[in-house]
Amino acid sequence: MTDLAGLVAAVREDIAPQIGTGRVADYIPALARVDPRHFGIAIATCDGGTAAAGDADLPFSIQSVSKVFTLTLALGRVGDALWRRVGREPSGSPFNSIVQLEREQGIPRNPLINAGALVVTDAILAGRRPEIAIAEILMYLRELADDPRVAVDREVAQSEAETGFRNASLANFIRSFGNIANPVASVLETYFNQCALAMTCRQLAHAGLFLANGGIDPVGGQRVVGPDEARRINAIMMTCGHYDASGDFAFRVGLPGKSGVGGGILAVAPRRASIAVWSPGLNASGNSLVGALALESLSRRTGWSVF
Amino acid sequence: MTDLAGLVAAVREDIAPQIGTGRVADYIPALARVDPRHFGIAIATCDGGTAAAGDADLPFSIQSVSKVFTLTLALGRVGDALWRRVGREPSGSPFNSIVQLEREQGIPRNPLINAGALVVTDAILAGRRPEIAIAEILMYLRELADDPRVAVDREVAQSEAETGFRNASLANFIRSFGNIANPVASVLETYFNQCALAMTCRQLAHAGLFLANGGIDPVGGQRVVGPDEARRINAIMMTCGHYDASGDFAFRVGLPGKSGVGGGILAVAPRRASIAVWSPGLNASGNSLVGALALESLSRRTGWSVF
Amino acid sequence: MTDLAGLVAAVREDIAPQIGTGRVADYIPALARVDPRHFGIAIATCDGGTAAAGDADLPFSIQSVSKVFTLTLALGRVGDALWRRVGREPSGSPFNSIVQLEREQGIPRNPLINAGALVVTDAILAGRRPEIAIAEILMYLRELADDPRVAVDREVAQSEAETGFRNASLANFIRSFGNIANPVASVLETYFNQCALAMTCRQLAHAGLFLANGGIDPVGGQRVVGPDEARRINAIMMTCGHYDASGDFAFRVGLPGKSGVGGGILAVAPRRASIAVWSPGLNASGNSLVGALALESLSRRTGWSVF
Amino acid sequence: MTDLAGLVAAVREDIAPQIGTGRVADYIPALARVDPRHFGIAIATCDGGTAAAGDADLPFSIQSVSKVFTLTLALGRVGDALWRRVGREPSGSPFNSIVQLEREQGIPRNPLINAGALVVTDAILAGRRPEIAIAEILMYLRELADDPRVAVDREVAQSEAETGFRNASLANFIRSFGNIANPVASVLETYFNQCALAMTCRQLAHAGLFLANGGIDPVGGQRVVGPDEARRINAIMMTCGHYDASGDFAFRVGLPGKSGVGGGILAVAPRRASIAVWSPGLNASGNSLVGALALESLSRRTGWSVF
Repeated sequence: MTDLAGLVAAVREDIAPQIGTGRVADYIPALARVDPRHFGIAIATCDGGTAAAGDADLPFSIQSVSKVFTLTLALGRVGDALWRRVGREPSGSPFNSIVQLEREQGIPRNPLINAGALVVTDAILAGRRPEIAIAEILMYLRELADDPRVAVDREVAQSEAETGFRNASLANFIRSFGNIANPVASVLETYFNQCALAMTCRQLAHAGLFLANGGIDPVGGQRVVGPDEARRINAIMMTCGHYDASGDFAFRVGLPGKSGVGGGILAVAPRRASIAVWSPGLNASGNSLVGALALESLSRRTGWSVF
Repeated sequence: MTDLAGLVAAVREDIAPQIGTGRVADYIPALARVDPRHFGIAIATCDGGTAAAGDADLPFSIQSVSKVFTLTLALGRVGDALWRRVGREPSGSPFNSIVQLEREQGIPRNPLINAGALVVTDAILAGRRPEIAIAEILMYLRELADDPRVAVDREVAQSEAETGFRNASLANFIRSFGNIANPVASVLETYFNQCALAMTCRQLAHAGLFLANGGIDPVGGQRVVGPDEARRINAIMMTCGHYDASGDFAFRVGLPGKSGVGGGILAVAPRRASIAVWSPGLNASGNSLVGALALESLSRRTGWSVF
Repeated sequence: MTDLAGLVAAVREDIAPQIGTGRVADYIPALARVDPRHFGIAIATCDGGTAAAGDADLPFSIQSVSKVFTLTLALGRVGDALWRRVGREPSGSPFNSIVQLEREQGIPRNPLINAGALVVTDAILAGRRPEIAIAEILMYLRELADDPRVAVDREVAQSEAETGFRNASLANFIRSFGNIANPVASVLETYFNQCALAMTCRQLAHAGLFLANGGIDPVGGQRVVGPDEARRINAIMMTCGHYDASGDFAFRVGLPGKSGVGGGILAVAPRRASIAVWSPGLNASGNSLVGALALESLSRRTGWSVF
Repeated sequence: MTDLAGLVAAVREDIAPQIGTGRVADYIPALARVDPRHFGIAIATCDGGTAAAGDADLPFSIQSVSKVFTLTLALGRVGDALWRRVGREPSGSPFNSIVQLEREQGIPRNPLINAGALVVTDAILAGRRPEIAIAEILMYLRELADDPRVAVDREVAQSEAETGFRNASLANFIRSFGNIANPVASVLETYFNQCALAMTCRQLAHAGLFLANGGIDPVGGQRVVGPDEARRINAIMMTCGHYDASGDFAFRVGLPGKSGVGGGILAVAPRRASIAVWSPGLNASGNSLVGALALESLSRRTGWSVF
């Protein structure tokens, strides 16, 4: 479909003047040294089309974008029982997460904030050793992306572990309420590894395509989740996918999406396409500045906003 | 369109066993004495179709559903300048609203919570007397509903004023940060009257139709807001329209919506239809219990979920 | 007692280099225009001694220092029943007061923060007109100070009313929980007038002397409160008298005290003396900067710290 | 001094009807199985008098009472520099501690809440191995109590470590702000051991006597801290020693004190005596119910209230 190529080119042109803006995450060296001028975009459509532009084949640290996939994996494992352990409401400001965790007795507000993702990881672990769970998550992403090159960046995982005191605090806090069952250290190890997944825009767009397509990967034809489940995951991405700027993303882009501190964003246009963008510079809310602008441009150009 | 009539009938049948459940708001007599067994539904489609069932022609207190319309009115008055005075992020739990108001220096999180709606009302007042602003809001709703019978229930307005200490607290709090410009008493008087608007499901469905139709009322053909504005209002309804249960509504129904404590919900199916339901019994989050179930049924039957 | 004169002179000398430092409250004109270089100190001892230095005979706005006296008055009126409506725990940061008010269902943490003082004022009002309650409070202070010149500064009271949105917010909030019984406007009017009491250091030191003397004014001999009550009021001043810097004042001065935003501080040395200081410049916590230093010097020179 | 023996006997008689009330801490087995009917009291006066009654020679888990002694030890090590790492303000409700920790960038409100005590322990550790710091703390308490039988209860320490997720959460949280310098595991190990110190009332009363005596242990004559330091520690005990019931303890007892979840309370009557009570049943705030009543009785009988 020739339009797709034109589309990504036009989007790239729209945001070209902004490339390099924003502030690269610097809490670990492996992220801090990434060149802020990277920009990649990839689209995969439900009818099999693909297009990409810029650094769409360069792997980057997907970080919190992984939360969408571990959520999917955990729902497959434990089904709706997961919702007894984690909510599906926006959390308001980051400040709230820990306050609400206290008020709500260790039940995180949603699975896309760190607290909730830790519970999701605990559900995936299910008594196994971290290496097993990490391997399972990695295999899962390779299958979704249909690409065996998806990998865990060991340096990033190591750095996350060394600096992850806030996540260690959250995990212990949740554990004090009994909502984490595995040893805290195992949950953290698994979590730090899933955050360290390195993927390209092209891989990420493919991996998320089932969410646009009623739960079925249209390329391989396999069902990943049921159609209701896909809708619900999209709903959670819409209301909770961008931390304290989820409302703004819905307002400006109008698509379910999930961002990561590595500068990646996965967006889903239901019944149409999955889009991955990457640009390392972040805005004040910790989401990719240029990535969000690119998706805003794409939404405007395509009319794919769900609203 | 015959399907519409079948649709509302089927939805009504789906929820019939639940009619009368939930807890009617009892903070003012006029609401407390409403029969919990009422149920009404009305649909208006972008291509001119309408259907209704149950008590769709009985006026009820729309309460917070009015916030959608005052937001629209204020955006028409002051445009994007409004967003300097109110955010567009979900607020988390009700508890947060006042905390965040303090942290965020009197800028309410979004225009669909009470704090934000008070600022919106202040923007509409714009130095005029409350009666003028109330009349303007009333005229606006009559036009949108294309029905001169839309009215303010004076008893409800009076009761709201007599018991509205929490809103008086919020308004004074915001005023202490300078984000309310008119006298607090004027803002409150206007606000209590807009909450006391009495409308039928049929009127409400028609009044919200422009939001489904890119900002144009398809019946009369007049443009109410621009297409981007309509999308944005829908986005805010999606992320913020049901207080602390907005995520759950998105998860279950998948449509932008706004509820009121009188038991009404307005939902928007972009490019398709506007739907109003009414059932006075509320769930724990203060949203119509049966109303939400009806919209869940409707969404499932039509596939209108945006996700 | 000649030492007293030497003491206040020495204290004044100690703080002389700091006179004029701190930041004068500027939220109302009548306070903003006070010369920051004022400094007054007065001591009244249980055995009848008095001494003063500096501007000890210049009236200033006692503001929150009045909370000690309205608490005393209310305890005389309703006794221990007051403690069902207000706690006696420190409130932590100012930020907490409204959060805790919500968590604790409209029961303010203690009677020396604004929320608690509003409840105390409500207890004094007891269904009467504000003028009556204001007159009673004024008479009470005149008696305690044994000086008919104690007065309400009408300009200050007026300004407080015009800018008191935060207090109006608190009062409405508490009222929404039913912990204010009189009309909010009456409570606020009374409260703004009590804050506007103008007294000299000499008057204030005398007025607080009963607290140092087991509840009896040693000059006139009349019992103001029982000995246990006096001890308890001192305890509350110690733990709650300086907002978010109560711990620091206890740490540095070691005496029960209550500060006001007008720059006054009343301190009580149990079984010894009552001390009033005044210096308009405030520190970051809103307490008199030089006043606190003067009390620190006095405590060090006398060994009157209770610790 | 014969009065002392009469005093403790009278106090014991006062509280006899209450013995066994309250709820024994049950988060670890070693505490849960303690007989609630224990009651011990010991007094040591500045002029060398001692008296004891009940189970005054039975060791119990001093738990948070240890925070007073580690604070003293840390102040001796790092002096006023400690106050850059921990505040000295009451923390309000337990709920606040973690919220304020976030707002105040990892600086705990005071050294007598868990968060602050963890920072104090970190200051004591100072790069050494936990066993060394634990040995130092133990030696310190043996010296202060002048009794080599003071010991760490290994079972309690072990249980604390196994269930201490909340403390692990706090320590990691503080570490994320850089206000803990040693490995979190080392800080926790030291902390759990200091909480597990087992002492008798008689040992504890002796150990705290320097605080009543201007910093000098009157028995052995050695200076533990300077007189200002002693006063300041007493001030902190007064405003912060009983968690969210510090104001109430000041109100009812009028003495600086520190409680522990094992049912012990150390109280200081400046210039007079040090008092230790023990009774395992706790009130709703987590302080010894009968212990606080005993101190209230003692304060009333002696007039030792500082107010």
